[in-house]
Amino acid sequence: MSLLVVGSVAFDAVETPFGKRERMLGGSATHFSLAASFFTDVRVVGVVGSDFGESEMEVFRARNIDTSDLERVESGKTFFWRGRYDFDLNTAHTLDTQLNVFADFQPKPSDAAKGSRFVFLGNIQPDLQREVRESVRGAELVALDTMNYWIESARESLIKTIGVVDVMIINDAEARQLSGEANLHRAAAKVREMGPKTLIIKRGEYGAAMFSDAGYFAIPAYPLESVFDPTGAGDTFAGGLLGYLASHETIDDATMRRAMIFGSVMASFNVEEFGTERVARLTHEEINERFRTFKRMTHFDEIPFERTGR
Amino acid sequence: MSLLVVGSVAFDAVETPFGKRERMLGGSATHFSLAASFFTDVRVVGVVGSDFGESEMEVFRARNIDTSDLERVESGKTFFWRGRYDFDLNTAHTLDTQLNVFADFQPKPSDAAKGSRFVFLGNIQPDLQREVRESVRGAELVALDTMNYWIESARESLIKTIGVVDVMIINDAEARQLSGEANLHRAAAKVREMGPKTLIIKRGEYGAAMFSDAGYFAIPAYPLESVFDPTGAGDTFAGGLLGYLASHETIDDATMRRAMIFGSVMASFNVEEFGTERVARLTHEEINERFRTFKRMTHFDEIPFERTGR
Repeated sequence: MSLLVVGSVAFDAVETPFGKRERMLGGSATHFSLAASFFTDVRVVGVVGSDFGESEMEVFRARNIDTSDLERVESGKTFFWRGRYDFDLNTAHTLDTQLNVFADFQPKPSDAAKGSRFVFLGNIQPDLQREVRESVRGAELVALDTMNYWIESARESLIKTIGVVDVMIINDAEARQLSGEANLHRAAAKVREMGPKTLIIKRGEYGAAMFSDAGYFAIPAYPLESVFDPTGAGDTFAGGLLGYLASHETIDDATMRRAMIFGSVMASFNVEEFGTERVARLTHEEINERFRTFKRMTHFDEIPFERTGR
Repeated sequence: MSLLVVGSVAFDAVETPFGKRERMLGGSATHFSLAASFFTDVRVVGVVGSDFGESEMEVFRARNIDTSDLERVESGKTFFWRGRYDFDLNTAHTLDTQLNVFADFQPKPSDAAKGSRFVFLGNIQPDLQREVRESVRGAELVALDTMNYWIESARESLIKTIGVVDVMIINDAEARQLSGEANLHRAAAKVREMGPKTLIIKRGEYGAAMFSDAGYFAIPAYPLESVFDPTGAGDTFAGGLLGYLASHETIDDATMRRAMIFGSVMASFNVEEFGTERVARLTHEEINERFRTFKRMTHFDEIPFERTGR
């Protein structure tokens, strides 16, 4: 198996200015694995309750996602999150969080999972992330997401985990909070000093940036006339990015750059409809079409200025 | 003469977390013309008072900027602005504005000025912008800047002016305010319906975007570890952009794209020191070096994804 993700599998209730859903499939591991499944084989480590039904399992199965490490706790209910977005779709307002079976989640990767080449540590408690990371000893590349809650409440544990990963994927506010630096480029330098050779910053409607030994790489977001539901965009980005990387034998800076684009493409589809609805029925041709659009919308010729005497 | 700018020439007092200046050369026409002067010949239409001295005039002269249309009112004082930036350098807090001779400014372009190929209507009252635009009948390309104040207080006049320009250069908040659309791509479509074939959106630390018949083009900002004083960044961007365009016989989409990069490069220098200090002593080699860096930090290979069966 090439790509392992540990994270939440959840039911989401979401309300935006454009509509609402009372109960739909969500969670970081869900969004991540769906996006990654277009590029590579994915295995999910997570936990659900007895309310997690056949129709939800079918979403994973239809995309060939391996759910044999998705634990099912019959005595409990699946993690539930209720959120609302205003017209400024950048900020999620949490209305309700019911951890349910997720409260006592102890990831127990199978031997097959422990043999993964690539690992994504989705946004869960940093000690658990580190345990998973350490159980997959031979991993070629381990990437980490986190959030403001862990930066505040579990800083020491988080910094230990950051020390044992290769790639960190967070948003700009989190990078600033973690580093204590307002300037993004200084913040990035400080975060990279904590361990990850590569730091990827998600900037929502403004795109994404990558800081690594190979230098700085920055891209705008895919242009969208309507954003419907941003829930899961960050995990979908990470899924496209790591899924694309995992489809390669070797990874260099050029591969990382294209992976950033494929991550952005996947996120652009995710936000166009509620939950997993759009990504679940994507095609490779649609993905490549937006990849090509990305090239068209960022290309310019490298012709330096020469004063002609006009 | 190839490029004409009408706008403010001012004294600025600026305080940032990194230092302060009690009185330095500023104003939209100043920042614009200095940046443009690296690419083409520039002429300034504006007004100053008797306190505008030789050392200020020398800044223009040193860059070969034609100031014969810079009116001098001996009975008055030069426009004065005092502002403060907090650690979030994106927002200027105005502490004092003394319009002085600028209050009764009536642009009177000379015949030479009226023969300009390119015109930049800097951020002044929209009726005055339109008068200048109409006086330069043969102009190949006229670009417009404005601000929230005119969008609120002179909306009808502004919309008339927008109807007679080719390019509009504003920031994202202004585009949203002008169009009443929260989504930037819808906002851009509405603004372009008002007249300008090309709309350029400045996004500060997030870069810039261009909307035209040729499609969408978007770039990140040049990466800076320290931003010292953002005053004049937008006018410096416009100056680099239009200066570069004016150095060309014909303008196509590829030229417009490179002009966006040169505009961003000029703005990146402007914010590194107070006022005009950094741009005034720039070299073409420094400009081209950042242009090349822009290419390196945005390039990726156009290789669509093909599932290999891994």
